[in-house]
Amino acid sequence: MKFIIQRDQLIASVQDVMKAISSRTAIPILTGMKIEARSNGITLTGSDSDISIESHIPTEEDGIVNIEDIEEGSIVLQAKYFPDIVRKLPEKTIEIESDSNLKVTIRSGKAEFNLNGQDAEEYPQLPKLQSDDSFKIPTDLLKSLIKQTVFAVSTMETRPILTGVNLKLENGKLNFTATDSHRLASREIPISGSSNEFPSIVVPGKSLNELYKILDDTEENVEISVTNNQILFRTKHLYFLSRLLDGNYPETSRLIPEQSKTVLQVKTKELLHTIDRASLLAKEERNSVVKLSTMGNELLEITGNSPEVGRVVEEISVQSIEGEELKISFSSKYMLDALKAIENDEVKIEFTGAMRPFIIRPANNDPILQLILPVRTY
Amino acid sequence: MKFIIQRDQLIASVQDVMKAISSRTAIPILTGMKIEARSNGITLTGSDSDISIESHIPTEEDGIVNIEDIEEGSIVLQAKYFPDIVRKLPEKTIEIESDSNLKVTIRSGKAEFNLNGQDAEEYPQLPKLQSDDSFKIPTDLLKSLIKQTVFAVSTMETRPILTGVNLKLENGKLNFTATDSHRLASREIPISGSSNEFPSIVVPGKSLNELYKILDDTEENVEISVTNNQILFRTKHLYFLSRLLDGNYPETSRLIPEQSKTVLQVKTKELLHTIDRASLLAKEERNSVVKLSTMGNELLEITGNSPEVGRVVEEISVQSIEGEELKISFSSKYMLDALKAIENDEVKIEFTGAMRPFIIRPANNDPILQLILPVRTY
Repeated sequence: MKFIIQRDQLIASVQDVMKAISSRTAIPILTGMKIEARSNGITLTGSDSDISIESHIPTEEDGIVNIEDIEEGSIVLQAKYFPDIVRKLPEKTIEIESDSNLKVTIRSGKAEFNLNGQDAEEYPQLPKLQSDDSFKIPTDLLKSLIKQTVFAVSTMETRPILTGVNLKLENGKLNFTATDSHRLASREIPISGSSNEFPSIVVPGKSLNELYKILDDTEENVEISVTNNQILFRTKHLYFLSRLLDGNYPETSRLIPEQSKTVLQVKTKELLHTIDRASLLAKEERNSVVKLSTMGNELLEITGNSPEVGRVVEEISVQSIEGEELKISFSSKYMLDALKAIENDEVKIEFTGAMRPFIIRPANNDPILQLILPVRTY
Repeated sequence: MKFIIQRDQLIASVQDVMKAISSRTAIPILTGMKIEARSNGITLTGSDSDISIESHIPTEEDGIVNIEDIEEGSIVLQAKYFPDIVRKLPEKTIEIESDSNLKVTIRSGKAEFNLNGQDAEEYPQLPKLQSDDSFKIPTDLLKSLIKQTVFAVSTMETRPILTGVNLKLENGKLNFTATDSHRLASREIPISGSSNEFPSIVVPGKSLNELYKILDDTEENVEISVTNNQILFRTKHLYFLSRLLDGNYPETSRLIPEQSKTVLQVKTKELLHTIDRASLLAKEERNSVVKLSTMGNELLEITGNSPEVGRVVEEISVQSIEGEELKISFSSKYMLDALKAIENDEVKIEFTGAMRPFIIRPANNDPILQLILPVRTY
């Protein structure tokens, strides 16, 4: 194998593929990165067996030559050293060559690295998904869906299914839902031009977090394919495969109250900053609890209290308060997460009493829903 | 005590003073920050008993009013919460008030924090140094002196005296020297207009690191005063006091070889980047060792080697090589630290054989000296 490649192109691809590589893995060769040279370009592969990422650099694209002097072949290199080496090489082009003894030479300017490679034949084959029943959504929309839900997954391994995000595609609607059983985040978008459906699947939160990091903020489409145990996200040069979580995701729709006793509408940012300040004095507790009280029809009072340190109280003007008076306590962390996930200027919050879950939605009725269970403080 | 103050002014002062405050201290009140209001301004004080910092905000400066409605008094506040509170307050002005029960109220906009304070009478008095025998140097020059030497202090508590930087003022010259017994960094500058002298003192490296962070990059002077157990750095609004380390600093001048057998001159950045690349394959070892070999009169070869991973070799053109041929191994970390401390474009390196310490100086003969002990690899 041999090729000469533009350093910046290689750096970008290496960074993407590294997201799938872990230094702790049961399969030693997976601590390496596979490099495959074909006449049409170079493909880098990384995998921790839960997530697999392939990044392709075409030989030529839009009239620009990325790679020259290709001799086909493949090799696996230690991922621990390769990214730093590529990043610190002195010149803009890099020559990579491997011989029949699996010795790899990386040259750039006067610098020459000789590395021990591993046989690419020993690298596991990635499953090739059938992509017949796939659908497409714009990359930036997929990133929003992830960002607005994935923070609510559970970090506890006691109920593994809750560490994933529940995806459904039914009746032309794609739904993302995550819950750790104390709060829930969900969003639905219409998918047009696809007769496709898949039932409830669960994608590990970790996979979606890594996917979020390597996707660009672009309107170009991501193609998504689902089988019964894997999901594939494919962009022009990227192939991101994740296993699915086994098990049945709990039915969450019954958690969502259908009636409400108190409804308020408030500026998102104003509430966010007020909650943030109220949370300052309760750092000791894990999810520092704050209290919200309605004061007539136009004011809320937000308070935080930490007996040893002190107390904070702040009034905030709201657009409207309808229904019963209310005093309720909740985790400021959950509330801050929920408010950050809503891009709209105003939010509508619907309460059904101090002991019942409450719902936060954007005031423009976008189908984003954040649900939080209150904390009993009386 | 009561006053109304510009938030941004207060944030800057609080950040500086926090550098002296530790949450782990034998004297509980030192986990707090002392706030003192006088008609001429507000003074904040923090201390961990090794370092003490006072920051003063004048009531009025250059015609700009910083503080209003002052009622004199003082209080000590929990430093764990105060910085975040100040930073997150909603408005540009902040009102701080304490009552006779040590209750403190902080108001800004509609936010109100009620905190439990502590009696300022219980806060230790900072020793007031006589500043009769002080001298002055520009702040940016002091920062250079610190940056070029402090990295070489020892981090091991086995010889506590080596965790400090040795300062001397003799014959109109100020000298900073640090060594961890494997390498040494030193710089000397002339001090004009001062008849002052002080013998060898040792300032904790930690103190100088914190001082470096809070000093601005300005040509304005810092006033330095020394007693037998403390050193004071004073700028317009800042008072930084550090204890000195007890004990005799070792005589370092005899470590510095007076003759050399091989002398080379090389571009600083080029050597730095080459050493950096050569160090990549030896991450496992603590101070990854690289090897330097002269190749005739114009080339150096730098190599790094890690049996399991591979080998890197790079040639580098030098300005000149004089004297004997040389092969020498040394810690790449020490070499990188030394080269980073030298601002000049070219460095001169003087060797006295593969087993003897070698010296790195700027080629322009500025009195900066970096010394490194080689590693025995044969």
